[in-house]
Amino acid sequence: MGPRTPIKVTLVGSGNWGSAISLIIGKNVQKYRDEFDEKVLMWVYEEMINGMKLTEIINTQHENVKYLPGKKLPSNVVAVPDLLTACKDSDILIFVIPHQFVENVCTRLKGHLKEGTLVVSLIKGFMIQKKKGGIRLVTEEIRELLNVDTAVLMGANLAPEVANEDFCEATIGCKDQNDRWSILHKLFDTDNFKIALTEDANTVELCGGLKNIVACAAGFADGLGYGSNTKSAIIRLGLMEITVVKIIVFVFVELFYHGSNIRTFFESCGVADLIATCSAGRNRKICEAFVKTGKSMKQLEQEMLNGQSAQGPLTAEEVYLMLKKHNMVSRFPLFSAVHQICQGEISPDHLVAHLRESQNSH
Amino acid sequence: MGPRTPIKVTLVGSGNWGSAISLIIGKNVQKYRDEFDEKVLMWVYEEMINGMKLTEIINTQHENVKYLPGKKLPSNVVAVPDLLTACKDSDILIFVIPHQFVENVCTRLKGHLKEGTLVVSLIKGFMIQKKKGGIRLVTEEIRELLNVDTAVLMGANLAPEVANEDFCEATIGCKDQNDRWSILHKLFDTDNFKIALTEDANTVELCGGLKNIVACAAGFADGLGYGSNTKSAIIRLGLMEITVVKIIVFVFVELFYHGSNIRTFFESCGVADLIATCSAGRNRKICEAFVKTGKSMKQLEQEMLNGQSAQGPLTAEEVYLMLKKHNMVSRFPLFSAVHQICQGEISPDHLVAHLRESQNSH
Repeated sequence: MGPRTPIKVTLVGSGNWGSAISLIIGKNVQKYRDEFDEKVLMWVYEEMINGMKLTEIINTQHENVKYLPGKKLPSNVVAVPDLLTACKDSDILIFVIPHQFVENVCTRLKGHLKEGTLVVSLIKGFMIQKKKGGIRLVTEEIRELLNVDTAVLMGANLAPEVANEDFCEATIGCKDQNDRWSILHKLFDTDNFKIALTEDANTVELCGGLKNIVACAAGFADGLGYGSNTKSAIIRLGLMEITVVKIIVFVFVELFYHGSNIRTFFESCGVADLIATCSAGRNRKICEAFVKTGKSMKQLEQEMLNGQSAQGPLTAEEVYLMLKKHNMVSRFPLFSAVHQICQGEISPDHLVAHLRESQNSH
Repeated sequence: MGPRTPIKVTLVGSGNWGSAISLIIGKNVQKYRDEFDEKVLMWVYEEMINGMKLTEIINTQHENVKYLPGKKLPSNVVAVPDLLTACKDSDILIFVIPHQFVENVCTRLKGHLKEGTLVVSLIKGFMIQKKKGGIRLVTEEIRELLNVDTAVLMGANLAPEVANEDFCEATIGCKDQNDRWSILHKLFDTDNFKIALTEDANTVELCGGLKNIVACAAGFADGLGYGSNTKSAIIRLGLMEITVVKIIVFVFVELFYHGSNIRTFFESCGVADLIATCSAGRNRKICEAFVKTGKSMKQLEQEMLNGQSAQGPLTAEEVYLMLKKHNMVSRFPLFSAVHQICQGEISPDHLVAHLRESQNSH
């Protein structure tokens, strides 16, 4: 038997988080060059920056000047403007795009991937199940559209801190088959980005999506001037509602599901991501500004997020619709309050009144 | 049958936390005057403030000018300088003193309490089991010395924020017998101090003591300039070590133990208290200063805590001795690192190296 064919890896997406993770991926494929192809392709949605193509800037200056300015990307990370060219020969696709683009990207890739391709999703958010009025995991959508296996990577991973190589942890949810745990560990793990693996992928992904709702509540509390006691109570109540939503999603929405474990909430994707997001994430920030300025979410997204949408209010709406359909709104005072505050239906200073209700509902 | 005899309540202790909780107790005994004696006695360790006795100041100005300046105490909270006078006729004693004073206070009270007195401990910290080299719960010591029933109240309750009536939660651990849950709920619960009750009192108390070790690690990380990812990882790893220490304490140290539940870690006394303490507690603060100034813990306690000792380094030492005795130090990289850093045995910047080990030990 000859040596194994090297595993080809493509990053699908090149925003702030995609660029930060490319620092890790680019180095690790070189470190394990027996296993991986040394060139990592990165699909970049082409745009012009001061008269020059972003892909050209990345491939000559090795810097994503728009989404991760000031950090040198490894020179073996190669920007590619065409989606199919970037993906068709790869064994592992790392999806790190806003969840609104998933359907479009998958539709274009369908029928053009190698047999046995694995998609690793770093996307935090949900798809909406239009007919059923529930939420749907991004990986479920990907599996259905592309007929591939999937894994997820979530955790307390604020992108700028990962790019700075501050110590952090992350959780990968994936079935342990075909040597996958070992391969994914080699691809993502570093001294400052410690990977833990679990088979409980659905819970990992749910935690990553739902925590943004809690971060909105934390932001409202900051905007109202509350201290650490209140914010800790919000994080705790959020954790409780996440665990209960998990049950609902798995029971009512009939997702294929196996091997969930309360331990997953103690992983980086659970409690740690929740804390980090409630301390320093963009959802927290925009919701604090929502209270302090009185401006609309849309306006704040323009001003503070360069027009990108915050995931929290969106996720809160999707979850709210699901809860409503199942007549369970009253059991989720925190999630419901976040949605109603984002919609302008109740005033932010009613947040605490809703939290008090939590004592009765949990 | 005539009306029930009103329940008499005494606060044993009048520091920052004792004074803050007296605001709640004083109001609640008035609200439920059918159940409680309206006068709450507060044992105050007598000291002179500008030539006037602290008890006199409290009883005339209704303010603890030394430990909670600027807040009016309810006028039905009466300061008493003599311990026995304050306690001998009471049905519920709320212990809120540093754990170093517990043995002395109990020894003086022994044989002088009413039959059936309940002691509610708000003390966060452990006694040392001198012979066995383990840690010992404060309530175990109290039960043994006084032959009384005990309950504990713990939670994400930074005293200044409780005094400001910011919304927070707390957990009471107590056996649900003789109507106790109902009585304790009436005594402590308010709109902004929401009480949850559990029978799992030992876990509640352990969480309250151990979280201070984690707060030290959080403070070191802040002193080293790490961000939210790292701090979230520390909190998560701390939570893991707390759950494992719990098992060790209950298995090896042979505490009387029943009804523990992983759910208790999701209560305010667990994850929420951990987060609040790591965000804003005094242990975090002093450990940040330890890294930034290079001064000794002793000196920083003098300068920053008015000579009071920080519980974190002390608790870390007690736990370390227990782990060492059971040959389990290597399974607790975070707890051990905190102790060794406090002792000057390793430099704070080795903290992250120890956290990396955690990936292998948990």
